Amino acid sequence: MIGRNTLLKLMILEKLRDKNQYVVRELAWDIGTKPEYVNMLISDLKKNYLIDVDRGVVYWNPADNPSTLKPWGWSLEHKMIVGSTQEVARGRGPWSVVIAEYMLLGRGRHGKKWVCSLGGLWITFKLPVDPVTASLAPIILPVILVRIFRKNYDLSAGIKWPNDIIIDGKKIAGILLEAEAFKDQILLYIGIGLNINNDPPLEGTTSLKEVLGRLTPRNRFLSLLIGWIARLKKLAEDQDEIRKSYIEYLETLNKTIVAKTYSGEIRGKVVDVGDSGELIVETEKGLKILDPVTTIELRHIK
Amino acid sequence: MIGRNTLLKLMILEKLRDKNQYVVRELAWDIGTKPEYVNMLISDLKKNYLIDVDRGVVYWNPADNPSTLKPWGWSLEHKMIVGSTQEVARGRGPWSVVIAEYMLLGRGRHGKKWVCSLGGLWITFKLPVDPVTASLAPIILPVILVRIFRKNYDLSAGIKWPNDIIIDGKKIAGILLEAEAFKDQILLYIGIGLNINNDPPLEGTTSLKEVLGRLTPRNRFLSLLIGWIARLKKLAEDQDEIRKSYIEYLETLNKTIVAKTYSGEIRGKVVDVGDSGELIVETEKGLKILDPVTTIELRHIK
Repeated sequence: MIGRNTLLKLMILEKLRDKNQYVVRELAWDIGTKPEYVNMLISDLKKNYLIDVDRGVVYWNPADNPSTLKPWGWSLEHKMIVGSTQEVARGRGPWSVVIAEYMLLGRGRHGKKWVCSLGGLWITFKLPVDPVTASLAPIILPVILVRIFRKNYDLSAGIKWPNDIIIDGKKIAGILLEAEAFKDQILLYIGIGLNINNDPPLEGTTSLKEVLGRLTPRNRFLSLLIGWIARLKKLAEDQDEIRKSYIEYLETLNKTIVAKTYSGEIRGKVVDVGDSGELIVETEKGLKILDPVTTIELRHIK
Repeated sequence: MIGRNTLLKLMILEKLRDKNQYVVRELAWDIGTKPEYVNMLISDLKKNYLIDVDRGVVYWNPADNPSTLKPWGWSLEHKMIVGSTQEVARGRGPWSVVIAEYMLLGRGRHGKKWVCSLGGLWITFKLPVDPVTASLAPIILPVILVRIFRKNYDLSAGIKWPNDIIIDGKKIAGILLEAEAFKDQILLYIGIGLNINNDPPLEGTTSLKEVLGRLTPRNRFLSLLIGWIARLKKLAEDQDEIRKSYIEYLETLNKTIVAKTYSGEIRGKVVDVGDSGELIVETEKGLKILDPVTTIELRHIK
């Protein structure tokens, strides 16, 4: 289900995406409502988008509108509503970026349902990589995200194993990796959900808006991200450096955790990380190993 | 609220509107779902639209797709989702036809909420008329609709006062008239909701699909309607003939009714219709007059 007003807001965004200034009255005609109703919807949109109204003219800050980005070497598609950006990317060529303002069938890891809200960045990158880069992607991607939060936003972000990004213990970004064999290469689908200017969608989550206390232009984060992902292969070349960073950023290390796995619950203290990213957990019944494939859920206890 | 699958179906219709054949796999990519899911949605769409799938290719019968109509002298706009077609028409010039597959803020008479479902025809006609034609429109429009149902579909349609169209006592079409002064002319907004291939949206309603037992190409009804509405002035010239037809088709005449008005409930037998379309009702307390402006709801009892 999607609320009527959410849908009307997406219709307004679609109009503003293609023409960044719009007279309120014309916007009302084009979506088929009264101007007063559009004004109400816009006041609401202003909470999650860099949108302003001045003397009856609505304006979407181009730095917040992904359609205005033309990243060199990439084909960028910015849609309003899709099932899932991962599925849109299936039909696109390599070096595609698919962004949606709203996903109806968003997926998380282990087929978990994914809750959407307006103002975030929901993206899939599709690119060809060699097998080594593909195998390291699960640790490179969270490292990239943490570095952006730390270096460009001055925030103490960390990794919650295996690849959620957290700030103050709350999830701010998630990653979903999928791959397809393509001749001797691998086509990587990097799904990234970033809580930017959206209100935190669930308990235990946060957003840049909440952390910074203000809205931020999404294209800044997006350009940084595209720049790093274009250099994925380069980052994979220095495996030791990446592994070191991953472990440095991994807040799960030395934490007491509870994990739900396909073979039951595991509770204990994380004492180490293996070479393939598996966790070594000290439990009452001795050491246990957690790997991302069979771990459905993990919580930090203390 | 709008269901996720309804929205995905509208996204499919939008793709088919602009390109009447589509490979299922490409459709899946473009809306961001898996082909199996698209196939499921299409089987569902086939219940309300003349849509077919043959060897992985989806096809929308052009006679069911209003976008393929190019009515002479009219500018036709066919949208997927709008607030209300009446409001879209506000921003369009005279001689516009606005059609939507789904309305989020559909209105009925007396500001009643209007329930939308897929497969009907939800239309606003905007045209300039002289004052006489404008004043007769409330009786000409139902007469036009009844004639189409009777002559072109061989169905015994009638009018439920003031201007609902009924078949076997069930509502199949509704009319909402609004007007704007424009120099010495009047700009008329004729909103018409027609239950064509949709499933009857409410208790006491029916649709052409239900009455005929099969789907029917919507453009046939639409062309007939456009043709009649283009001749509105001509029809208004013979007032007597129109009034005679209106009264002939008016099933409310001689019926026992219950009416909800702004000044209370009225119950009695309808014995006559006045020159301005008002009903003369014989109640226990003597004759009462019902006019469309102050009557909120009317039910036929027997």
